[in-house]
Amino acid sequence: MKSIEIDRNKRLKDEPRKGHNRWHPDVTPVLEVDPGEEVVLETRDASDSQVKPHMTVDDMGGLDTKVAHPLTGPVYVKGAQPGDLLEIEYLDIVAQPRGWTRFRPGSGFLRDIFTEPYLVHWEMSDGWATSPQLPGVRIPDGSFMGTAGIAPSHAQMEEWTRREADLVARGGTAVPPDPEDAVPSGGAIANEGLRTIPPRENCGNVDIKQLTKGSKLFIPVNVDGALYSAGDGHFAQGDGECCITAIEMGATASVRFQLHKGEAQRLGMKMPRFSHSGYFLPPQWAAPRNFIATMGMPIRDDGTQEGEDLTLAARNALINMIDLLQERGWTREQAYIICSVAVDLRISNVVDLPNVTVSAFLPEDIFQG
Amino acid sequence: MKSIEIDRNKRLKDEPRKGHNRWHPDVTPVLEVDPGEEVVLETRDASDSQVKPHMTVDDMGGLDTKVAHPLTGPVYVKGAQPGDLLEIEYLDIVAQPRGWTRFRPGSGFLRDIFTEPYLVHWEMSDGWATSPQLPGVRIPDGSFMGTAGIAPSHAQMEEWTRREADLVARGGTAVPPDPEDAVPSGGAIANEGLRTIPPRENCGNVDIKQLTKGSKLFIPVNVDGALYSAGDGHFAQGDGECCITAIEMGATASVRFQLHKGEAQRLGMKMPRFSHSGYFLPPQWAAPRNFIATMGMPIRDDGTQEGEDLTLAARNALINMIDLLQERGWTREQAYIICSVAVDLRISNVVDLPNVTVSAFLPEDIFQG
Amino acid sequence: MKSIEIDRNKRLKDEPRKGHNRWHPDVTPVLEVDPGEEVVLETRDASDSQVKPHMTVDDMGGLDTKVAHPLTGPVYVKGAQPGDLLEIEYLDIVAQPRGWTRFRPGSGFLRDIFTEPYLVHWEMSDGWATSPQLPGVRIPDGSFMGTAGIAPSHAQMEEWTRREADLVARGGTAVPPDPEDAVPSGGAIANEGLRTIPPRENCGNVDIKQLTKGSKLFIPVNVDGALYSAGDGHFAQGDGECCITAIEMGATASVRFQLHKGEAQRLGMKMPRFSHSGYFLPPQWAAPRNFIATMGMPIRDDGTQEGEDLTLAARNALINMIDLLQERGWTREQAYIICSVAVDLRISNVVDLPNVTVSAFLPEDIFQG
Amino acid sequence: MKSIEIDRNKRLKDEPRKGHNRWHPDVTPVLEVDPGEEVVLETRDASDSQVKPHMTVDDMGGLDTKVAHPLTGPVYVKGAQPGDLLEIEYLDIVAQPRGWTRFRPGSGFLRDIFTEPYLVHWEMSDGWATSPQLPGVRIPDGSFMGTAGIAPSHAQMEEWTRREADLVARGGTAVPPDPEDAVPSGGAIANEGLRTIPPRENCGNVDIKQLTKGSKLFIPVNVDGALYSAGDGHFAQGDGECCITAIEMGATASVRFQLHKGEAQRLGMKMPRFSHSGYFLPPQWAAPRNFIATMGMPIRDDGTQEGEDLTLAARNALINMIDLLQERGWTREQAYIICSVAVDLRISNVVDLPNVTVSAFLPEDIFQG
Repeated sequence: MKSIEIDRNKRLKDEPRKGHNRWHPDVTPVLEVDPGEEVVLETRDASDSQVKPHMTVDDMGGLDTKVAHPLTGPVYVKGAQPGDLLEIEYLDIVAQPRGWTRFRPGSGFLRDIFTEPYLVHWEMSDGWATSPQLPGVRIPDGSFMGTAGIAPSHAQMEEWTRREADLVARGGTAVPPDPEDAVPSGGAIANEGLRTIPPRENCGNVDIKQLTKGSKLFIPVNVDGALYSAGDGHFAQGDGECCITAIEMGATASVRFQLHKGEAQRLGMKMPRFSHSGYFLPPQWAAPRNFIATMGMPIRDDGTQEGEDLTLAARNALINMIDLLQERGWTREQAYIICSVAVDLRISNVVDLPNVTVSAFLPEDIFQG
Repeated sequence: MKSIEIDRNKRLKDEPRKGHNRWHPDVTPVLEVDPGEEVVLETRDASDSQVKPHMTVDDMGGLDTKVAHPLTGPVYVKGAQPGDLLEIEYLDIVAQPRGWTRFRPGSGFLRDIFTEPYLVHWEMSDGWATSPQLPGVRIPDGSFMGTAGIAPSHAQMEEWTRREADLVARGGTAVPPDPEDAVPSGGAIANEGLRTIPPRENCGNVDIKQLTKGSKLFIPVNVDGALYSAGDGHFAQGDGECCITAIEMGATASVRFQLHKGEAQRLGMKMPRFSHSGYFLPPQWAAPRNFIATMGMPIRDDGTQEGEDLTLAARNALINMIDLLQERGWTREQAYIICSVAVDLRISNVVDLPNVTVSAFLPEDIFQG
Repeated sequence: MKSIEIDRNKRLKDEPRKGHNRWHPDVTPVLEVDPGEEVVLETRDASDSQVKPHMTVDDMGGLDTKVAHPLTGPVYVKGAQPGDLLEIEYLDIVAQPRGWTRFRPGSGFLRDIFTEPYLVHWEMSDGWATSPQLPGVRIPDGSFMGTAGIAPSHAQMEEWTRREADLVARGGTAVPPDPEDAVPSGGAIANEGLRTIPPRENCGNVDIKQLTKGSKLFIPVNVDGALYSAGDGHFAQGDGECCITAIEMGATASVRFQLHKGEAQRLGMKMPRFSHSGYFLPPQWAAPRNFIATMGMPIRDDGTQEGEDLTLAARNALINMIDLLQERGWTREQAYIICSVAVDLRISNVVDLPNVTVSAFLPEDIFQG
Repeated sequence: MKSIEIDRNKRLKDEPRKGHNRWHPDVTPVLEVDPGEEVVLETRDASDSQVKPHMTVDDMGGLDTKVAHPLTGPVYVKGAQPGDLLEIEYLDIVAQPRGWTRFRPGSGFLRDIFTEPYLVHWEMSDGWATSPQLPGVRIPDGSFMGTAGIAPSHAQMEEWTRREADLVARGGTAVPPDPEDAVPSGGAIANEGLRTIPPRENCGNVDIKQLTKGSKLFIPVNVDGALYSAGDGHFAQGDGECCITAIEMGATASVRFQLHKGEAQRLGMKMPRFSHSGYFLPPQWAAPRNFIATMGMPIRDDGTQEGEDLTLAARNALINMIDLLQERGWTREQAYIICSVAVDLRISNVVDLPNVTVSAFLPEDIFQG
């Protein structure tokens, strides 16, 4: 089985041939695989292993701040070309034994209220996370990759950089390219590469908690080989991830790719979709069984980037779901009705500025055999 | 067993002693009950029985337009006083055999896109809804009351009227008092009574799909006797109810009240909460098992009413959940962390302007023994 | 919709044109239906309405004893012929509000231990059964028809009568034809008709608790029209029904037939089958969530080891469960009733000789908080 | 964390200080632990690693035949004394990647029908077992320890030996002590030690499939330190384990002990009990969702009616299920294997004399889309 193994005692910058932390089409692939092959990716946590089990909140001041998100990859998928739809099946996601959750001044959904930093450590064993800072709480395993996506094209990278700069110019919040802490360091990738904080059309940091073992993620391919990377493992998270971190951990993801040739172009798909048969989702962990879902972010049809606007994100997730239903042969009006009576709108993240994300979940079981 | 029985061949205006369609503290109670008693309420659909099984979309032009929502009640709960917390347990919710879903110009989340009216009929039997307009679709029974709440005080009625008028003055959308189609007709209730379209602190039209059989709803009492009313049954709905109607139907609700004396005042509770043990929620229908939840609407702390703003609604649901966790002894910081790792933010309705609603669901099972 | 409506204030013998209580090919059909039609059957309880809500165990002495099971029907399914496979889909099963459970000398799995009669009454509302004789217990709705089947052919009736008589001749227990209390009374049906106590190849009293709403039952057809009848509703039952009664009730079953022409003959099928999609089976009830269980092996109380004897293993598991319930403060009689209505007996292993093992599963959720 | 690590390239006889394969009070403990400590036990499969991935059925002739079951342990639980109740919590059970299922002449429930040996290999990854011998079948992870128990006292050992010999004298089947292949070899343990094939009051080989991760097992303590051992991991099994093997594998069990002082004596408990909160039991597996089932009654093929014989009923349900699988194209041998690893035998009724009924439940979801 092919794999990318990392040394978890090292930082990403010490193993730059195993990963990267900026989205850019020119990152060198670590591995080539065929569709249908199983691939195992070992990944680092969102802090690039800087948060250690016995750190206090005061220790956090000296950490490198622009390391997020250390990603393992990219993986070059043979045969993938722009216009294809890449399917990523999550065969397994295995947690490392330690995790943490924190919030910091200036980020998180309630950043005006929570102005002092705070840090919680977790131990994971036997399927539960527990924390000495939260006595009596135990959180069941719902491991997923907070950040996973594929390379943008050069044109996309330029357009997305532009629209986010435009938002900043209008007073909004976004995260421009920045070579500090970039891996690979120096050069075009560090200088031009998109920061991974916001999710975008290439997926990335969507923080969708339903992307657990057993799920399938579908992303329109932008460059030859697709260039899939993953990192930012979450042991568990609420829909929304309100303080901007989940139970953050290193993880090992087993994935398998399939190519749907020309499908993204044929459908005019711009945003990722995902599905889950429900097999490995425990019912306590609360997702509709056997669904397919669309995503929405606060980007207008004319390409304008808006900030922290869940209403626009919900609108876009819903329009994407109506499109999906139309692809299956329903009229727009029927699709709108089906959405109103059966499709759930859930807030996937409310913190990855500017692209807070709403997902629309269609339960497949409403369609008769 | 006490009950309010209606003649479903009649409109609410023909049985004005069984119900009302405006929120007002002076509506005369239909029934008095003790805490612990079971009460059965027969209710009309949101159109006040105007939509008939064989109507076409063209027939809808002539209908009375300001009848929503015909409510059965109010029920006077003996001993209830302002400052108490009223608990309503839904023992059963039974569907009538016919339902409908529609959208109309000027309402619904995508009202700029869907500008032509549309109508779908449903038949409900054996636990499924099917529609000749949506061949091959069947929706399992998830019956709940779209609108259920208690009377506001006079002071609240005046304040809410004022804040909504202020929103309209700023260009927003709200629904001012209007005596047309009001029941009771004429007089102070018709002229001053709050329209039932938006949900508010007295609950009402929250359209929360998890308020099914087995759930418990908690509302701070505003007037003596609380004055509970219910209507607007939904056979099924997606989180969000995007086109502004669900599978609309008449329903029969069996409820039981409990009083938590002085609890709302002691906690400083302003918004309703709800919980569910999960017993009668089929897992396909997708809610966390054994939860307690808070609600948020786009109303600022200083009382300003905002419009269609899911971000503000999510913020308020989250702050209310942090308050709930603090009541249980967690610090604010611990509570925020728990929310980020375990609390789901879901869009309950995105259409009941101006008070679109987000709910925050806390799974009780994360707390050990 | 076609239906057979009964007067529940009358005994079966007072409405002999609506039903029967012996299996015989010559019973006159009450109704004819086409495959695909929905049919509603109102049914009486197993005592033929003799057990009344306020009866005591002493009142039971005077009851007619050979009335079981009053069945509603038969329904003639057009086109059904011997060799076909009849499919019965249970669209809905609705409980009457009162029920009972009892045991009597000479019947039940532990008839040597429980030699005094005992009676418990139940009230069913809002999806739960509760009993003044079992305070603190509530049993969720798992309604199914304890007895439902089709007519045997004349040849089958004769063969089954013969094999059961042979068993009796060898010292075994069976229930020969008996005209006492028979409906229709007198004549060949009363004299020759098979008693309904044992299930046989025509299905009948199989007491399979999974035959709930949503299930499908498949029986090889023996006579033209199949002649389906149903009765003996159970609100809930444990696998095994150890004391010989469940929560016995009148019920209303909605069923739909399909014919698989020649399929039983083609497959050489002699015994019924059944299936369930799981849609309406709540997970707490289809299998117990949150259980405690006991084991039994084929070892006698005096220490004697027996071989491969599941019957003795089941007996011991059950006695151990009764002990467990006694430790919690229930009387032996209460415990036996609880086992009959809620404890599942499942075969854990049938191979580890000599100690084949049966387990008894008690769902803890039946005990109110 | 304390652990017993084994070398899986070695046989038990090559690491006799890590385990044993006979039940005897004098086996030397490998490890001492306190109540409340987590302990990790690595275990061998039931064949003592003799069955290798590429073996054929013909290779099986030369294997040592009396090695079952190689157990890891015993663990001495400090403070445990006769009369206490030992609680074993299964914190985790992790599968090795390879497994097998077989049947052999002279053993298994249908040993008179299946007289030729048969062998199937499994590969386990990502939570599923698949087999080249059963194309299209996948079995979800339901790992548990087939054999786990504690030491008998000397008096128990003698009594159990005697009662089993008595059964043999009456023509029954049992497995007397036998020093061949015993570990430790030679001496009193090999000569007197109880074979582990049958489960007994000390638990052992109960093969109860619900003893998965999250379960708790309670056994009355017989000797100081209790002396807990475990082995015989099963990746999955149907209730009944009809061909006498499950998906047999090496496994790693994480367990934690608690002592309930004097509880077994106080309760007069002689047999083990077990419980499960249901948290880690996927609903598809704890009970089959989406099943098809067959029935069996105690009627012989020649038409003879037998009484109250669950064993014959189970046999017939199983034969009917094998017929059903044959109709779908499986060979009889494949069908028998599928039954052993996935079909649940449950006692439907044990009272409707003479036809007590057993049902066999096949979960349809094991067949890949």
